[in-house]
Amino acid sequence: MRHKKYEFEEIILDPLNVLQSDDVFSLLPLDRINQLTQAARVEDYRTPILLESRGTFAEYLWFVVAGSVDLTLYSKEGGIARLPITQGHWATWAAVFGSKPLEFDFWSAKSTTLIAFPKAEVITAVHDQPKVMLKILEQVSENATLLNTWILTATILTAEQRLAHLLLILSSRQHTSVTKGLKVTREHLGMVGLGTRQRVSRLLGKLVQQGVIMIENGQIVISSRERLEKLALI
Amino acid sequence: MRHKKYEFEEIILDPLNVLQSDDVFSLLPLDRINQLTQAARVEDYRTPILLESRGTFAEYLWFVVAGSVDLTLYSKEGGIARLPITQGHWATWAAVFGSKPLEFDFWSAKSTTLIAFPKAEVITAVHDQPKVMLKILEQVSENATLLNTWILTATILTAEQRLAHLLLILSSRQHTSVTKGLKVTREHLGMVGLGTRQRVSRLLGKLVQQGVIMIENGQIVISSRERLEKLALI
Repeated sequence: MRHKKYEFEEIILDPLNVLQSDDVFSLLPLDRINQLTQAARVEDYRTPILLESRGTFAEYLWFVVAGSVDLTLYSKEGGIARLPITQGHWATWAAVFGSKPLEFDFWSAKSTTLIAFPKAEVITAVHDQPKVMLKILEQVSENATLLNTWILTATILTAEQRLAHLLLILSSRQHTSVTKGLKVTREHLGMVGLGTRQRVSRLLGKLVQQGVIMIENGQIVISSRERLEKLALI
Repeated sequence: MRHKKYEFEEIILDPLNVLQSDDVFSLLPLDRINQLTQAARVEDYRTPILLESRGTFAEYLWFVVAGSVDLTLYSKEGGIARLPITQGHWATWAAVFGSKPLEFDFWSAKSTTLIAFPKAEVITAVHDQPKVMLKILEQVSENATLLNTWILTATILTAEQRLAHLLLILSSRQHTSVTKGLKVTREHLGMVGLGTRQRVSRLLGKLVQQGVIMIENGQIVISSRERLEKLALI
């Protein structure tokens, strides 16, 4: 018997499928899609690997087939913070189009499969395509807006509202239409400022009770994005 | 005797000057710059005015000549959070290129002068110019990266480090080369999660002592962006 999750991963393991089902890349002419497909490389990581270091420049745009790419920051005092980019999402458009060195490390989680598209090839494929550029700009803009709102909510929202908000941010990162659940751990959610694993579990429970999310096989599935937005945005 | 600040405001009160000295718009052909100049409108506000409401769509890209445009969010319980976009900066590229309704209100501060460029005219002027689009994408990407880092630092940095970080975010918002000081109040800084006005004053004092910033006529001047970055990013 084949596992449901496995089927999903098989579908998106093919670079051509990923590009053709994506909001941005599907707008490209076929020859550009084919060129990008040929430049793509599938990467498998059993253990966490440092993909790109803070202070260097991104060399790839990654599509997360399984596992996650974790934006990671360490403090001098030994603190650690992670923002995971999960299955079915891109990591990250902003790193590819910014011209400054990376501000945080990119780590793969354990059991992670990625499709890597070289940054230079991505830029060559899209830079002279106005519709595609507008679409990328739209997605990066919406991400920036969500992040702005997250900062604004820091002082005025309850922890429950902030969790709803964080789920919106994590699930809106340039995902393809094939994305279903959000694979984030309670530890991940706690690491961006919502407290301990136990506290995050309690907060998630409240969202489940309200019918806004479901937990299925350890994944968070957003039942109603509309209600989640209503809850998150005051 | 004319005030120094006033001279600066006079220079940037001319839409053509603003466009020609800007990293993005200066890349446009001259006829496009002229078209945008003709579509521009100078707006003066003596008292705070609601410019755009949450739930609607942005209609203008604003350049802040004096005062500020404040991204503002209210909670049901009466809480209020503001993120100011200050003199010499654009408010906001992300609102113009996103396709979703605004997630927060845009308010003018008191004594605010703006140059408003209609969103539709801006998009028409830039959409088929690959170099310009790449530049806009670069700036929005870098903003998104800074915001990501701000979220990552929430749990692992000291208040002093976070303040340094916030100053970097506020001063990097798509500014023109004529920008000097950062006009933000202690109240503004406190509103994004750094505590009371008094606490923010103490934190600013520490940064002044370290020679990273100066306070001149109530404005924060960044003495060394490099050292501020070093302090902020762990």
